[in-house]
Amino acid sequence: MFQRILIANRGEIALRVIRACRDLGIEAVAVYSQADRDAPYVQLADRALCIGPASGLESYLNIPRIIAAAELADVQAIHPGYGFLSENPDFAEICRASNFEFIGPPHEAIRKMGLKTEAKAVAKAAKVDCVPGSDGPVDSDEEAVHLARQIRYPVLIKAAAGGGGKGMRVCQDESQLLANLKAARAEAEAAFKNPSVYLEKFIDRPRHVEVQILADNHGNCVHLFERECSVQRRHQKLIEEAPAASLPARARDRMCDAAVRLAKAAGYVNAGTIEFLVDQEFNTYFIEVNARIQVEHPVTELVTGIDLVKQQILVAAGQPLPFKQKDIAIRGHAFQCRINAEDSDHGFRPSPGRITHLRVPGGYGVRWDSQIVSGYVVPPHYDSLVAKLLVHGMDRDQAAAIMRRALDELEVEGIATTTPLHRRIFRNPDFLAGRVDTTWVERVLLASKGE
Amino acid sequence: MFQRILIANRGEIALRVIRACRDLGIEAVAVYSQADRDAPYVQLADRALCIGPASGLESYLNIPRIIAAAELADVQAIHPGYGFLSENPDFAEICRASNFEFIGPPHEAIRKMGLKTEAKAVAKAAKVDCVPGSDGPVDSDEEAVHLARQIRYPVLIKAAAGGGGKGMRVCQDESQLLANLKAARAEAEAAFKNPSVYLEKFIDRPRHVEVQILADNHGNCVHLFERECSVQRRHQKLIEEAPAASLPARARDRMCDAAVRLAKAAGYVNAGTIEFLVDQEFNTYFIEVNARIQVEHPVTELVTGIDLVKQQILVAAGQPLPFKQKDIAIRGHAFQCRINAEDSDHGFRPSPGRITHLRVPGGYGVRWDSQIVSGYVVPPHYDSLVAKLLVHGMDRDQAAAIMRRALDELEVEGIATTTPLHRRIFRNPDFLAGRVDTTWVERVLLASKGE
Repeated sequence: MFQRILIANRGEIALRVIRACRDLGIEAVAVYSQADRDAPYVQLADRALCIGPASGLESYLNIPRIIAAAELADVQAIHPGYGFLSENPDFAEICRASNFEFIGPPHEAIRKMGLKTEAKAVAKAAKVDCVPGSDGPVDSDEEAVHLARQIRYPVLIKAAAGGGGKGMRVCQDESQLLANLKAARAEAEAAFKNPSVYLEKFIDRPRHVEVQILADNHGNCVHLFERECSVQRRHQKLIEEAPAASLPARARDRMCDAAVRLAKAAGYVNAGTIEFLVDQEFNTYFIEVNARIQVEHPVTELVTGIDLVKQQILVAAGQPLPFKQKDIAIRGHAFQCRINAEDSDHGFRPSPGRITHLRVPGGYGVRWDSQIVSGYVVPPHYDSLVAKLLVHGMDRDQAAAIMRRALDELEVEGIATTTPLHRRIFRNPDFLAGRVDTTWVERVLLASKGE
Repeated sequence: MFQRILIANRGEIALRVIRACRDLGIEAVAVYSQADRDAPYVQLADRALCIGPASGLESYLNIPRIIAAAELADVQAIHPGYGFLSENPDFAEICRASNFEFIGPPHEAIRKMGLKTEAKAVAKAAKVDCVPGSDGPVDSDEEAVHLARQIRYPVLIKAAAGGGGKGMRVCQDESQLLANLKAARAEAEAAFKNPSVYLEKFIDRPRHVEVQILADNHGNCVHLFERECSVQRRHQKLIEEAPAASLPARARDRMCDAAVRLAKAAGYVNAGTIEFLVDQEFNTYFIEVNARIQVEHPVTELVTGIDLVKQQILVAAGQPLPFKQKDIAIRGHAFQCRINAEDSDHGFRPSPGRITHLRVPGGYGVRWDSQIVSGYVVPPHYDSLVAKLLVHGMDRDQAAAIMRRALDELEVEGIATTTPLHRRIFRNPDFLAGRVDTTWVERVLLASKGE
């Protein structure tokens, strides 16, 4: 087993990994930028090393500095968290070439899954339904026009190397397609240094459902059922839950089986997420693999009882999974609210600054994943997520009641957060009935207030 | 269902009941003494009424003022919490006579169980083993001497109306017995206005194991398995866990069955706890019934998933229990540490005052039950419990690791707490191996530092 692990990340997920290390008796080494010098996660690590100035490129995204820190701290493994370098296959490869185990999938698998066109090819070979579309990058306008006629409008243009909705455009007809192709390629080039785009059938008002999988180096691969993340704004998830709200058993089974087939076909090892769109007839379409731990992983932990980050570490250390598929069962229902330092009442503008007062919710069914304390200054340089508020109840209604109570207890003063939006959502009849899709927040919830 | 409930208590348990009310959509009315005017639980209630000055007798123990507050707030039921009036049968009776449902057992059952000699008689009739001893108060010295010879020394003198260890004395021989009887009677008279004492066989180094039961008004009575509370100092529990550490299945089954038999024999309704001593040969002896919710109830909630306070309210509203015995199962292991405002490094002296900084632990497996926030002033007038730190893991070792991590994260500045003692216990090999009894803290842990 590892004696010492370096965490190549910051904030909430750095603390999450520190906690898993402690529970395993492993020393946790944090890294931090100058902007995070006084961050609570740094204080809670066994050791912490400064790796550069606030700029991500000069710190959390800087591979040589992270490798140097790992050498200095004499760790045996590196956990990348989510975001930053977590899905960078070069980073995974360099870690391993430097004799540090990378706590994540084989770099070949990350590389393959990171290119959507390749991921789609693997899925098709594993007989997993994908959204109808081009089987690879669409190089010419002529090809695009031809394909769009085949799959029928509306179609979607997506960046081959993209994520988070960047470079995505809906086209209702051929003129829109031609106009958007150029812009999408330029956007993809700027964002990902890769102008390749592909085409997909546009699924109207889909739900976003994803399957958590865990695979070890001994040929075992299991799923931990699904999460639903349909409550999104601008392709950013706001609320996640497990299991999905009102999903027929056959749709769930189809996705769970498909996720395991796909992971096996890709030679996937460690924790991963297979994302699907679900249309209004409960057809399910594979969209992409997230080859890392996800922000929303704790909802799966709450309903299965399995500590995913701990399993990531154990798998990376070469251990076989301590359970089989039949041992994994769902108990109750869990929700997560992402508490972001954004003013949801004023256009979601970023709201960094000093937290002057904090009341952390607690009691039956409540889990709080955050590094923040009263007095902490949220820096302006990074992702706005400051806390994850989670609840677990016997069923969806009970869990929603607990979340309402926990949100009402939560007090963060000094900065604005997305808490008021969450309070509103957990009192919304559509949401409570599970009648939401990925367009609902913008199309209905925010539109109704003219936001 | 009740529309509004008054909570005749303060602090942590008042907030616990407020949370259960919220989860049920019931309005929670708090009461407070002038010393608790700014307490967080007061702010979190839907409404709050001042019932008097700091003195318990003039506020939380003052029945007329509490009934007046209930009338003013127009509630349908009163929850007594633990401590204060929770086991006062007169209070329960007056509540009901005033047309407020008392959220607890029938007052007849509280009265019967409150007198240990009566409780013992009920137990014997239900064929539940008690500690060998007098079947009722021992009135004369002659009777005491005669009985002690029968049950054999060492024997224990206990106050018939006592609790919390007050009025208890161990006697190794006849001369000690005679010397202690007088003093024990005087102590019982002073503490409980009742000089009656009784005799019991003294069980050397026992473990304290208790069984949680739930009964409704429709004849259903179930147990929720056991808790172990052997880590005590001066008869005050410090750490509780569920299930018990290393207890043979037959001893557990015997206590669980006995608890249900006893509750049925006593006409018990609502939540209650049947306490046992377990000797070194795993003989189990009923000692008393706690006719209320207990401080340590959340460890049972964590391993069973059942919200006990919510069930208390539903049962009081006349609803049948929504589960049968066969539906109740244990999952994993849970611990609770009582975080008291006492300086465990300096003779456990009380440490009220302002909390200047607070870091609440969180993450996988952690539950925090407390009203405290940074800036809160712990008043000197009441019980020293300020927070309950709970953890839930897949097994006892994992839960202990999570508790170590959570205790290390916990920061309470401005007042001293029992946190350092808990950190020490969760690193102690005896405790981790489950080799503890109710005398262990004082006999071994504190003795080893000359405390």
